[in-house]
Amino acid sequence: MNRKTFYLLFFSCFFFFGKKSNAQIPDGAKPAPTNIHSNDCPCIFSDNRVLFRVAAPGATKVQLDIGKLYNMQKNEKGVWSVTTDPLVPGFHYYSLAIDSFKFADPASESFYGTGKMSSAIDVPEAGADFYTIKNVPHGEIRSANYFSKTMNTWRAVNIYTPPGYEKDATKRYPVLYIQHGGGEDERGWAVQGKTNIILDNLIAEKKAVSMIVVIANGNVTAPGGATGYNDAAMTAFKEELAGSVIPFIESNYRVKIGAANRAVSGLSMGGGQAFYTGLRNTDLFGNVGVFSTGLFGGIGRQPAAAFDAETAIPGILTNPQSFNSKLKVFYISVGEQDPRIEPTKKIIETFKSKGLNVQFNSFPGGHEWQVWRKSLHDFAQRIFK
Amino acid sequence: MNRKTFYLLFFSCFFFFGKKSNAQIPDGAKPAPTNIHSNDCPCIFSDNRVLFRVAAPGATKVQLDIGKLYNMQKNEKGVWSVTTDPLVPGFHYYSLAIDSFKFADPASESFYGTGKMSSAIDVPEAGADFYTIKNVPHGEIRSANYFSKTMNTWRAVNIYTPPGYEKDATKRYPVLYIQHGGGEDERGWAVQGKTNIILDNLIAEKKAVSMIVVIANGNVTAPGGATGYNDAAMTAFKEELAGSVIPFIESNYRVKIGAANRAVSGLSMGGGQAFYTGLRNTDLFGNVGVFSTGLFGGIGRQPAAAFDAETAIPGILTNPQSFNSKLKVFYISVGEQDPRIEPTKKIIETFKSKGLNVQFNSFPGGHEWQVWRKSLHDFAQRIFK
Repeated sequence: MNRKTFYLLFFSCFFFFGKKSNAQIPDGAKPAPTNIHSNDCPCIFSDNRVLFRVAAPGATKVQLDIGKLYNMQKNEKGVWSVTTDPLVPGFHYYSLAIDSFKFADPASESFYGTGKMSSAIDVPEAGADFYTIKNVPHGEIRSANYFSKTMNTWRAVNIYTPPGYEKDATKRYPVLYIQHGGGEDERGWAVQGKTNIILDNLIAEKKAVSMIVVIANGNVTAPGGATGYNDAAMTAFKEELAGSVIPFIESNYRVKIGAANRAVSGLSMGGGQAFYTGLRNTDLFGNVGVFSTGLFGGIGRQPAAAFDAETAIPGILTNPQSFNSKLKVFYISVGEQDPRIEPTKKIIETFKSKGLNVQFNSFPGGHEWQVWRKSLHDFAQRIFK
Repeated sequence: MNRKTFYLLFFSCFFFFGKKSNAQIPDGAKPAPTNIHSNDCPCIFSDNRVLFRVAAPGATKVQLDIGKLYNMQKNEKGVWSVTTDPLVPGFHYYSLAIDSFKFADPASESFYGTGKMSSAIDVPEAGADFYTIKNVPHGEIRSANYFSKTMNTWRAVNIYTPPGYEKDATKRYPVLYIQHGGGEDERGWAVQGKTNIILDNLIAEKKAVSMIVVIANGNVTAPGGATGYNDAAMTAFKEELAGSVIPFIESNYRVKIGAANRAVSGLSMGGGQAFYTGLRNTDLFGNVGVFSTGLFGGIGRQPAAAFDAETAIPGILTNPQSFNSKLKVFYISVGEQDPRIEPTKKIIETFKSKGLNVQFNSFPGGHEWQVWRKSLHDFAQRIFK
């Protein structure tokens, strides 16, 4: 860091740190909660249109990519802006692009998602305060390191411990293992997911039992390099969870043991991991939560017909009673605007027609964190009771 | 998120998530530890030159700003690259710029610094393994929320609890309060500073006593909006620490109370906060650590002569014995290539000439995290003994 940078940093201490765009916030718009402190924009209008703004006088083309690509317009001061269509409430990754190169907006917080540190905007949902921090007893998110035998390295894991965990050193808790989606890691449920706030609020309302939630890194590569939903990758993930994560948790935290006191769940890729790992290991997990998985179809080249439940989980259609007796909760959820919903509903019908006990719920929204926050909020109320 | 994005996310699960630049890593270079997993570059040569690379075929001007500004060169595939001069080992914030607009490099992790989420590169230092995770007992970094009376809002605070904290529910620990620099927040010492690894290693070697380290957000605005080193801002920071943070810690963690069991320290802006808050409140803090503060001069418009120690801390020059009797450790450190070093050495001489007990150390490097990691490593060995 050179001398010029010193001065810059020093004087910035006395003023502000954000990148303001020299323009006022429009009437009726509010800064997004994901903005870094001094930034007015992105700002959200009452109808959920969002104004994005960036001061880039030297740029010739600036765009916003928030699922839909918007061209931004430059004013005489070199400030580019665009107002989007109304956004669905919830958490949305987005990028800015200059000359088609995409990067994170310095005005917003960044989150590990889509395989990189990505900017995101959290659009508040009217009336939804289940993930708002309240004046109730609070737990903690703890960051620890365990040695992964599968990956042969130290890995970070986040652990939610509920309010009161410190107070009674004899009490033991059931454990929910919860997995992020593709392109995310152990930060997903701790940061984007707001797991601690959701659980603190549920526990305060006595809607969920006090539990530990373990938020591990599900990016596990099988020998040979396989990742994703294939068998080798699923086996590698199971080895990581059962062979390294669970032993670490059970020897370092006051947990109840036995399948009835363990749940495995996850979103998207993590939903697939929960499905395979949970249903193939009912001796380990008595509760399974599958949020927005693409396993059953609905996305890309994965036709619904390609999923053969009986091949994936032998006995699930031919001997459902054995699953019903072992699983206390088998839960599936999906967003109502997620293309995964139709094949998901179809497999639910198949499961039910065979007599398999499966609980299903859906929430407004697409393939996004608001649906997953609601899925956790819902699933957590159903387990360990 | 639209259908196209779904597909992209889904298929990315099966391949990789990084932004590769379609070029191989040069012989003898190694990916930086701060790279996001699949990225080869930034990559570090054995002499600490670093190759930065970015695939931006549509851009007309791409630069790297790592204190020094480098113009990057484009090849026929649209990949821009530059190899820097040898970098000082340690942690360096940097930006990429397209058309002069600066943003975080998607190939690297981002960190909250310089007032935004900034990319950074951690250049390993040969022989320095004090901040490398080892097979020793590990503590945790816990993220909690407390209610700030000063800011009238919930705020996050990170707390390092040492190995064994859970095992013996009767043991109480001394507490080090440690502050980040300007443009950073409570993530600084938890992430960039590697506080947990440094303390785990020191405790395992029996070089430091087991302690709790509290990593709070020092961005406290005084009524009227003052921030930085002025009196109103320093008073507001003291109110935050003594009125909200310490009561939260002391009622929720097993800490030893009394000034001898409390230390306050910080880097740069946080060093100034530690200086004022510690020396003005020796009833609260018996140990003070000031790392790389600009208080004494050496930066920008702050001439060394402007700092009047006796005005800042009444009695410090005229009644040093009262400070000597109250402070167990008063420690100052600075980087040897930091322009703050000369005025810092001058004030140390003044303090010593008046009979004030002050411990001083310096480390190779400028105004940067490697110096602060070493300062923590050094200071933590001196306190609570």
